[in-house]
Amino acid sequence: MDAYLKNIKEWALVAQAVRRFRTADPSVVVGPGDDAAVIRGPKELYGLLTVDMLVESVHFKKGEDLRRVGYKAVAVSVSDIAAMGGEPRFALVSAGLPRKDLARRAQALFAGLGQCARRYGVSVIGGDINRSDRLVIDVFMTGEVKKKNLVLRSGAKDGDTIFVSGPLGGSQRSGRHLFFVPRVKEARFLVKNFKVNAMMDLSDGLGMDLSRLCEASRLGAEIFEDDIPRNPGVKTMAAALGDGEDYELLFTLAPAQARRLSAYSAGRFHFYPIGRMTTAFKGVRICTRGGLLKKLPPPKFRHF
Amino acid sequence: MDAYLKNIKEWALVAQAVRRFRTADPSVVVGPGDDAAVIRGPKELYGLLTVDMLVESVHFKKGEDLRRVGYKAVAVSVSDIAAMGGEPRFALVSAGLPRKDLARRAQALFAGLGQCARRYGVSVIGGDINRSDRLVIDVFMTGEVKKKNLVLRSGAKDGDTIFVSGPLGGSQRSGRHLFFVPRVKEARFLVKNFKVNAMMDLSDGLGMDLSRLCEASRLGAEIFEDDIPRNPGVKTMAAALGDGEDYELLFTLAPAQARRLSAYSAGRFHFYPIGRMTTAFKGVRICTRGGLLKKLPPPKFRHF
Repeated sequence: MDAYLKNIKEWALVAQAVRRFRTADPSVVVGPGDDAAVIRGPKELYGLLTVDMLVESVHFKKGEDLRRVGYKAVAVSVSDIAAMGGEPRFALVSAGLPRKDLARRAQALFAGLGQCARRYGVSVIGGDINRSDRLVIDVFMTGEVKKKNLVLRSGAKDGDTIFVSGPLGGSQRSGRHLFFVPRVKEARFLVKNFKVNAMMDLSDGLGMDLSRLCEASRLGAEIFEDDIPRNPGVKTMAAALGDGEDYELLFTLAPAQARRLSAYSAGRFHFYPIGRMTTAFKGVRICTRGGLLKKLPPPKFRHF
Repeated sequence: MDAYLKNIKEWALVAQAVRRFRTADPSVVVGPGDDAAVIRGPKELYGLLTVDMLVESVHFKKGEDLRRVGYKAVAVSVSDIAAMGGEPRFALVSAGLPRKDLARRAQALFAGLGQCARRYGVSVIGGDINRSDRLVIDVFMTGEVKKKNLVLRSGAKDGDTIFVSGPLGGSQRSGRHLFFVPRVKEARFLVKNFKVNAMMDLSDGLGMDLSRLCEASRLGAEIFEDDIPRNPGVKTMAAALGDGEDYELLFTLAPAQARRLSAYSAGRFHFYPIGRMTTAFKGVRICTRGGLLKKLPPPKFRHF
């Protein structure tokens, strides 16, 4: 078997092992599988919990500026909380740090981490620091969301317009994956003013993440190649769909809400309608210039 | 400078960088520095948050049974929550997994993890799985504690009797560090029936951890060599004090409460009085057989 495919298959087995954790606890509103777990909270609130690990040589290069790595480690979790319609609150930070040049590297890492935490109103209230050959940083974040504002990836409806919050692709090449702006303001604006049916953040690329949204919502999606916004220098549709680490919002609105958004948001934020949800098929199809439909392969595994 | 000392000094600098995170958020009751962070909760409850990372070749051997590693990864956090007087609730699990033999190793790891989670009533509700050269597993746990039951390490009073919940030393040699029983029942019994002034779990050894409790409570501690319970095969006092990973409870009670505990707990649990808190000096002194006092060096850094 092809080594790559074998590996994908193995990851699928890991995902399976993980899914067995599903719980019967009535306090758990949403378990593994969305941007964050949702638990019952006091009064009109839900609690949100998410975690993101960054590993040296996998998520960032060995010589990378650790300020940026620290910033990103917090920003990815902030993005997850925002994509649920929530506000981030507390973080705990685990780090495995190599001995070499420890103090200087830790200082840079924590400086970046603190900068991002302050910017988004996150209090870092604990953690665990360890020795490790390779640098690894893991940020746990809690958040809260008003019950009426909670948006899952499973809520998309037939006929919904699909939007993204910004241009896609080229994030790693341009370095943007290390200093992106989590779409907290945009998400806040959306859940406050619209009935958002489904939302998630784009971490693995529109192709894979929209497939996940479809799967969670038990619908298909048809997107229009010409409508997908690309970052400067992103020449192919494959790159816009597959590069990943965009950290833009992907969300769906009923058509009437979608029309209202186009009128409402002009000038303040820009949201791009890229297609619509459908019951006609499963998975994601791309409408090309020639009007032809291209099918995307089913999603690979990443989170649980 | 000696490489070891230089490294300790560097870790102290890391600790310093981390302490800068202290927050002004009024929802934070206790930030970094105790077994778990404490946040305001609904009604008569506080929320507890803790995280513990295990790194291959640092916290466990490369060829170790991953069921046990998974079990331990959850158990250390359960122990932290118990040491605050609380009950564990939810966990999120991050893992960095090497590609080699991925599916089998992940299955073993998650089996152990699930076993421990079920045993202590913890719901695993999310996580993040990544590739990594070295296996690393990081468990984030939430818990809750009735306000009146919260016990910090800073609450010890002059004259308090110091207790441990079991014999010490030899945990790594015997393998017990991988399948220890977090003292949840003992902690529950204590906070329900006694006024516990200070409590923490023993992760780095009595010597270092009692020094931390002293520092947090701004007191000294005098412990009696003959009273310190040792595990079978633990021949020296240095091993009992320094081996670490005992995961027993260390706690203090006012003398009258201490006398009541000795009478009350007979037969059910066994708690060992080992000394007393004092204002006469700072740090930890050990009363040897000859009646002489030995001073322990100040604590090293681990958690934040």
